[in-house]
Amino acid sequence: MKIGIVGGTGDIGEGMALRLSTRHEVIIGSREETKARAVSTTCRLRLDEMGKACCLSGVSNQAAVDEAEIVVLGLPYEHLVSTIRSLTGFEGKIVVSPVNPMTFGETVSYVPPPEGSAGLLLKRLLPESARIVVAFNNIAAHRWQMIREELDYSVAVCSDDEEAKRTVMALVDTISNLTSLDAGPLKNAVLVESLTPLILNISKYNRMKDVGVYFR
Amino acid sequence: MKIGIVGGTGDIGEGMALRLSTRHEVIIGSREETKARAVSTTCRLRLDEMGKACCLSGVSNQAAVDEAEIVVLGLPYEHLVSTIRSLTGFEGKIVVSPVNPMTFGETVSYVPPPEGSAGLLLKRLLPESARIVVAFNNIAAHRWQMIREELDYSVAVCSDDEEAKRTVMALVDTISNLTSLDAGPLKNAVLVESLTPLILNISKYNRMKDVGVYFR
Repeated sequence: MKIGIVGGTGDIGEGMALRLSTRHEVIIGSREETKARAVSTTCRLRLDEMGKACCLSGVSNQAAVDEAEIVVLGLPYEHLVSTIRSLTGFEGKIVVSPVNPMTFGETVSYVPPPEGSAGLLLKRLLPESARIVVAFNNIAAHRWQMIREELDYSVAVCSDDEEAKRTVMALVDTISNLTSLDAGPLKNAVLVESLTPLILNISKYNRMKDVGVYFR
Repeated sequence: MKIGIVGGTGDIGEGMALRLSTRHEVIIGSREETKARAVSTTCRLRLDEMGKACCLSGVSNQAAVDEAEIVVLGLPYEHLVSTIRSLTGFEGKIVVSPVNPMTFGETVSYVPPPEGSAGLLLKRLLPESARIVVAFNNIAAHRWQMIREELDYSVAVCSDDEEAKRTVMALVDTISNLTSLDAGPLKNAVLVESLTPLILNISKYNRMKDVGVYFR
């Protein structure tokens, strides 16, 4: 399964590329193809050092969408609308959103768009045949990057497309020790996304680092 | 510290009374005092059987408010406004809200009032000197009741009153193996409350029982 990461040179994108490319074919996308190629090379060197083989390349965001079967949106919320509007070819693809609409003030707040969540905003922006899956929202970018450490968090996944949801849940379960959990329809994206500001606040107010969530 | 449980004859109220009364003085309140007394007796018998001493009595909701230093609102969201409006004497008291505004349809949804959360709704309803603390929102009523089993969940706590928050966090830490976590100001009640429908959905869609949450 080819995985394209739009915004793959950002913190989360790069970390996901590192973790995913040892088991899947990963295409890092960026607005600047040269940057994507550079990050791809850095990732390959880091994995080489650990004696890990990987399948990784750097391309434009558009090529990442075109070539992939699963497109991961490794974007900060502020760039979501403009990036999606600048791209085409999402028809029939599984589109994974780890995007959380948040503001960082005195405290971290969930600030969803009028649609109710980033997931539902994507439903309006993307073609109807795009298979939107909300997942990976609650994992700290920093932890994605620490590839010598295992990730053992729970990963809540929601979508209106049952088959796409199952595919992404199976993908989650191939990464380190992550455990996928079905969180229901896309309507529930608000619940999954708003967990991230709670995690960040808990981290802040209790001076804990890289807090993760577990449902048991 | 005297703890009054308004709505103490409901599922969560009774479970909290069972867990709290072995270490604190607990006053179970109810609209019908006779019902409160009956539940108090049942709880005492259950704890007796386990050889546990407790300090427990049953009174009216109004007496539970009047006599307690900490008032826990063991109410379903639907009865929150009418119950609060029927009571007086909250001035200066610590008022703990484990209340989650939810609807149970095809999926469980968070349906907050216009104020943004049950916590902020209480801020409007209660006198200004009431010290509102949102806590215990994410623990299944059923797990409160299973007193032979330990509870080891994380309990997110938020409030605008730092001293009241610290008092409730210390109270959380006296119950079984629960771990309190500071979740910031009362504004964050929306994040703590909306975690409960996520937990219930994860429970439903993955056929898991009494799901709890851990932040680590």
